[in-house]
Amino acid sequence: MISVSDALENVLALCAPLPTETVPLRAAHGRVLARDALARRDQPPFAASAMDGYALRSADCAPGASFAVVGESAAGHGFDGTVGTGQTVRIFTGAPVPAGADRVVIQEDVTRAGDRITLSAPIGDNTNIRPAGGDFRAGDRLEAPRRLTPRDVVLLAAMNLPEVEVYRRPEVALIATGDELVMPGEEPGPSQIIASNTFGLAAMVEAAGGVARVLPIAPDDEPLLRQSFALAGGADLIVTIGGASVGDHDLVGKVAADLGLARAFYKVAMRPGKPLMAGRMGGSVMLGLPGNPVSSMVTAQVFMLPALAAMQGLPPAPPVPQSAPLLEDVAANGPRTHYMRAIREAGGIRPFASQDSSLVSILSRADALILRPPHDPARRRGEPVDYLAI
Amino acid sequence: MISVSDALENVLALCAPLPTETVPLRAAHGRVLARDALARRDQPPFAASAMDGYALRSADCAPGASFAVVGESAAGHGFDGTVGTGQTVRIFTGAPVPAGADRVVIQEDVTRAGDRITLSAPIGDNTNIRPAGGDFRAGDRLEAPRRLTPRDVVLLAAMNLPEVEVYRRPEVALIATGDELVMPGEEPGPSQIIASNTFGLAAMVEAAGGVARVLPIAPDDEPLLRQSFALAGGADLIVTIGGASVGDHDLVGKVAADLGLARAFYKVAMRPGKPLMAGRMGGSVMLGLPGNPVSSMVTAQVFMLPALAAMQGLPPAPPVPQSAPLLEDVAANGPRTHYMRAIREAGGIRPFASQDSSLVSILSRADALILRPPHDPARRRGEPVDYLAI
Repeated sequence: MISVSDALENVLALCAPLPTETVPLRAAHGRVLARDALARRDQPPFAASAMDGYALRSADCAPGASFAVVGESAAGHGFDGTVGTGQTVRIFTGAPVPAGADRVVIQEDVTRAGDRITLSAPIGDNTNIRPAGGDFRAGDRLEAPRRLTPRDVVLLAAMNLPEVEVYRRPEVALIATGDELVMPGEEPGPSQIIASNTFGLAAMVEAAGGVARVLPIAPDDEPLLRQSFALAGGADLIVTIGGASVGDHDLVGKVAADLGLARAFYKVAMRPGKPLMAGRMGGSVMLGLPGNPVSSMVTAQVFMLPALAAMQGLPPAPPVPQSAPLLEDVAANGPRTHYMRAIREAGGIRPFASQDSSLVSILSRADALILRPPHDPARRRGEPVDYLAI
Repeated sequence: MISVSDALENVLALCAPLPTETVPLRAAHGRVLARDALARRDQPPFAASAMDGYALRSADCAPGASFAVVGESAAGHGFDGTVGTGQTVRIFTGAPVPAGADRVVIQEDVTRAGDRITLSAPIGDNTNIRPAGGDFRAGDRLEAPRRLTPRDVVLLAAMNLPEVEVYRRPEVALIATGDELVMPGEEPGPSQIIASNTFGLAAMVEAAGGVARVLPIAPDDEPLLRQSFALAGGADLIVTIGGASVGDHDLVGKVAADLGLARAFYKVAMRPGKPLMAGRMGGSVMLGLPGNPVSSMVTAQVFMLPALAAMQGLPPAPPVPQSAPLLEDVAANGPRTHYMRAIREAGGIRPFASQDSSLVSILSRADALILRPPHDPARRRGEPVDYLAI
């Protein structure tokens, strides 16, 4: 058995960034920027008014001074002339500040009568002008790699970039294996259960920026399992579920080896999730996850998500645990890293009483995994523990 | 001006849950469950082995006892007979425990010779059996409403539910207004800028479970603005951007009123985001957001996201702020709630020096909004402040 961190290092060593592609801005959210995006213009492109008011010269602003309104500058329609001494231009938020003016007095601070305004309040320190290029300048960049947020998309649009270069979405083939499995909606036989992991893993893949290809269930039969691997051809990542333990009926390792799997490791010292396989198979990375639903979802969290991030060009980033006080005592941990299913509550984090890796009802209620290092001693209610939000 | 909480209450009062629809499980992730999902079977459906080993009778388990191996129970293929005294059945993880057996001894604790095994270790307290229905029973439920996580999808699959009833996705029409705007990739005139908010808002809508319909830019022209509202027909939510201030060129309020807008409020005491409008217009809820990119994204966070959640049947849930120590002093706040753009760092949260609502470069770098209540006093570096992660 190898440690979680060694195993993760092995998995990441298998994963190279995928080729890039250009997508329209409308499709850029959640994708990973592959090349620095360079602004095509200054923002604002001109000195712009920050308020609705009147543009004029600061030097003219004696208390009670009055000005002739000689024009208007609205958003989209600037004033072409120059503001002279004793003159002003009606101006609206976002509109270009006309030549000659160096200040906008807000409309609440003037009285207007016909084509004249009079200052009715002290003008203060703020010019109410946003300088040209005050936000960014042409050539300023949004740096890659970076998973694009809605706020980044706003910036890219403002830079006048209608499309951006991003890493291709990893394509992930999911193969659930085992004679005991039927698809949801089918009628299981007396020894059978429903294939559930695949659906949760597909959702995780998609939330992580990948494309999930759910393959038909592979029975415990060598030729049929080979067929499933053939259907997975071209995938960037092949994820098998189940059949990777040492039981006499676990064929995945054998068939994958026959098909050329260069195995990076076999077992990881973690709980849940002991049976786990990783390696390279032709052009694909292969991850063999355990069949227990909880084990497969936790191992996917710990290994599959970082693999997908690496394929999307993101640098390795160890998960940053949060910390909260325990709301229950926990026993000493054994030799494996334990990811305890838990729920966050006011004042702390509560591990579930049963940590059996088959309990999907508890998995569904959990929103965090408490991290217990190998040989972590017993801990009492109130002690802080590290956890990952899931 | 009304307070943020009063305004939010008004917005939520405008929003009713949308009709429901049935979707396949593969499309259920991120949707809001509309009706309790009831398990169609027990899980596990039979007492199942938790380990690879040998099923036998506890009563027979004297130290060093030996057993005749009379059959095998594998996942998907149970053993049809009964395990008698002195007998055992080879069993694999997840396989049905045969009749007669009440314990599984793990394979590491026996020695096998031909068709006999001998106990080589004390058997301990754990039967290594997962009882039938130990995870959930037929009729057990996943309660609605609830936004479905990947882990919920696993549970629904295990319940043998191939499809679920969810609230329809809210359809959101986005109308950016203003003569100053051109679309990214177009060549702006000398007084023009790029429409950027729409793209960020569309990404927010989609991340919140909605469907975004980005309409063409509406110039500052009554007939053309009417046309845009016509194109928004049938949307559950119409979001306008810009044109909702009191400037002479802000037509949105006028045209919306002509079209029957029953206005709930006009201005909210918040920063950024003062100009803001909400109401009902025919079958649609209408939100008028300010034109500044930062203001529009912040007001969308505070009002649009809760509106979309309400339309998807989720109960009103006030945002739960997190807390972190300030890494910079901040000045006293004025009469409006201030959402300060900030970035989380090791040891605390750092507000950006400039809080000008036009700066999209800073918006892109921010990952949190520090919450300053009205008249919050000046605060020093090190004091804890509440913030919302964005």
